Amino acid sequence: MDDVRLNEALEGYHIDELSVGMTAVFAKTITEADIVLFAGTSGDMNPIHVNDAYAKETRFKGRIAHGFLTGSLISTTLGMKLPGPGCIYVKQSMNFRAPVRPGDTVEARVTVTDIDLETRRITLDTVASVGDTVVIDGDAVMIVPKRR
Amino acid sequence: MDDVRLNEALEGYHIDELSVGMTAVFAKTITEADIVLFAGTSGDMNPIHVNDAYAKETRFKGRIAHGFLTGSLISTTLGMKLPGPGCIYVKQSMNFRAPVRPGDTVEARVTVTDIDLETRRITLDTVASVGDTVVIDGDAVMIVPKRR
Amino acid sequence: MDDVRLNEALEGYHIDELSVGMTAVFAKTITEADIVLFAGTSGDMNPIHVNDAYAKETRFKGRIAHGFLTGSLISTTLGMKLPGPGCIYVKQSMNFRAPVRPGDTVEARVTVTDIDLETRRITLDTVASVGDTVVIDGDAVMIVPKRR
Amino acid sequence: MDDVRLNEALEGYHIDELSVGMTAVFAKTITEADIVLFAGTSGDMNPIHVNDAYAKETRFKGRIAHGFLTGSLISTTLGMKLPGPGCIYVKQSMNFRAPVRPGDTVEARVTVTDIDLETRRITLDTVASVGDTVVIDGDAVMIVPKRR
Repeated sequence: MDDVRLNEALEGYHIDELSVGMTAVFAKTITEADIVLFAGTSGDMNPIHVNDAYAKETRFKGRIAHGFLTGSLISTTLGMKLPGPGCIYVKQSMNFRAPVRPGDTVEARVTVTDIDLETRRITLDTVASVGDTVVIDGDAVMIVPKRR
Repeated sequence: MDDVRLNEALEGYHIDELSVGMTAVFAKTITEADIVLFAGTSGDMNPIHVNDAYAKETRFKGRIAHGFLTGSLISTTLGMKLPGPGCIYVKQSMNFRAPVRPGDTVEARVTVTDIDLETRRITLDTVASVGDTVVIDGDAVMIVPKRR
Repeated sequence: MDDVRLNEALEGYHIDELSVGMTAVFAKTITEADIVLFAGTSGDMNPIHVNDAYAKETRFKGRIAHGFLTGSLISTTLGMKLPGPGCIYVKQSMNFRAPVRPGDTVEARVTVTDIDLETRRITLDTVASVGDTVVIDGDAVMIVPKRR
Repeated sequence: MDDVRLNEALEGYHIDELSVGMTAVFAKTITEADIVLFAGTSGDMNPIHVNDAYAKETRFKGRIAHGFLTGSLISTTLGMKLPGPGCIYVKQSMNFRAPVRPGDTVEARVTVTDIDLETRRITLDTVASVGDTVVIDGDAVMIVPKRR
């Protein structure tokens, strides 16, 4: 039975399965609906996100997505793929580099840069891009479970 | 503390109106609905957020909110209140300290800790709490417009 | 065709009120928002539904709605109109014939094709269309209550 | 670089990678919010799903989830895991065996039962359960891409 972790388990990687350089991606289009729903759940009604007349008069020339909406795709990649379910999210830093607009497809990529087997902490480089443009970069620290 | 100009205007603070120690708060209950909607917009279906049977078997003993959902309330406070609309979000760091559960009311507080008039950059201490428990802490950097 | 008792009551048809050939319709536009919300409730983040950059490279040339989102309109017609509230949903088959895109208006039509008074089971032909294009067809079996 | 398909690609299985007996699972708790949102996207306001006073007087003794909401988890497992992105959904049958209530965690399991290399069609046994209770069973047919 060729039944890999991909299919079955609610478990992500264990600390001994990880190595520096491993990488994972999740991508999603940020639609108008995402922005509305994110505004509703976060309470962030900043006019740059929800008021088109206002936003057109700004340097952005139109509404932009919430930085945390874009950033959440980094979290999705960490929690769903690498290191995946079972890990503990310790720390995240984000530099907001460029705006994301309704209709943009954001790709979030995470790459393991450091592994501390003693504390089971790993550091990952976390980047969100739209095409060739980096929109967010930063780092994450996760605690990864050991094999039971 | 010179808290809270709840701007009816679509303009936030200008750089010369700010001083170290100014603070603002936004609070919101994280409902089941918020978690479902956030899962949909972020794509994050980690079982710790959406699978109660799984989550009960973990150290958290039940489903918890996405860290970025909680964190988004910090962003809301920055973008809506202090410094408010018109600012540019440059940087955010978050340390995830404790879980947030469906039904918890999260209070996000931001406090100005540094102001650089030259670059118009300010630094803020950013904390999210549930009652007396800090669930996220960290710092934000924003660029604040000057008076026109 | 003895169509459409739009029941104000919370009761649908009783078995003795039904005849072969009776038909009912429900139609709704599938918006971007519906796709985002459906992704969240179902957990289905297949890139063909949520990633425009990916979807454009496929034979579909863009994002399409989840088949079960379209199919749910059949269920709505059965449960709301014919036979309506009070019935038990026993079985549904669906053949997915063509894609549905954000902005398409889907019409779901159900038509009684068989009635078994003994078991109170009825069979219905169930079709969802966008304009003249059938997007889903199949059959449903329901148990319909008798008059009290 | 140990960078498996799990992490990187938007591609599911190719036809030559599949074998009879392969299986995959996706599980999710059906919350009140899921039912409300599903009602909104499907238009299905059947009182058995949205009217507690009504539902308590029925044989179900309370509100139940839409059958298509539960069924959508089968579709998620097919589209996300086995065979995964890139496949075409051809056919689905569902027998509704038992009700699902708000708070129930549904596990959807799909298992390959037949592979036709010529037409690239595969058949899968598709079952949704709450604990030991089968709530939906049936079959799916998918077309799976060949390796490029």
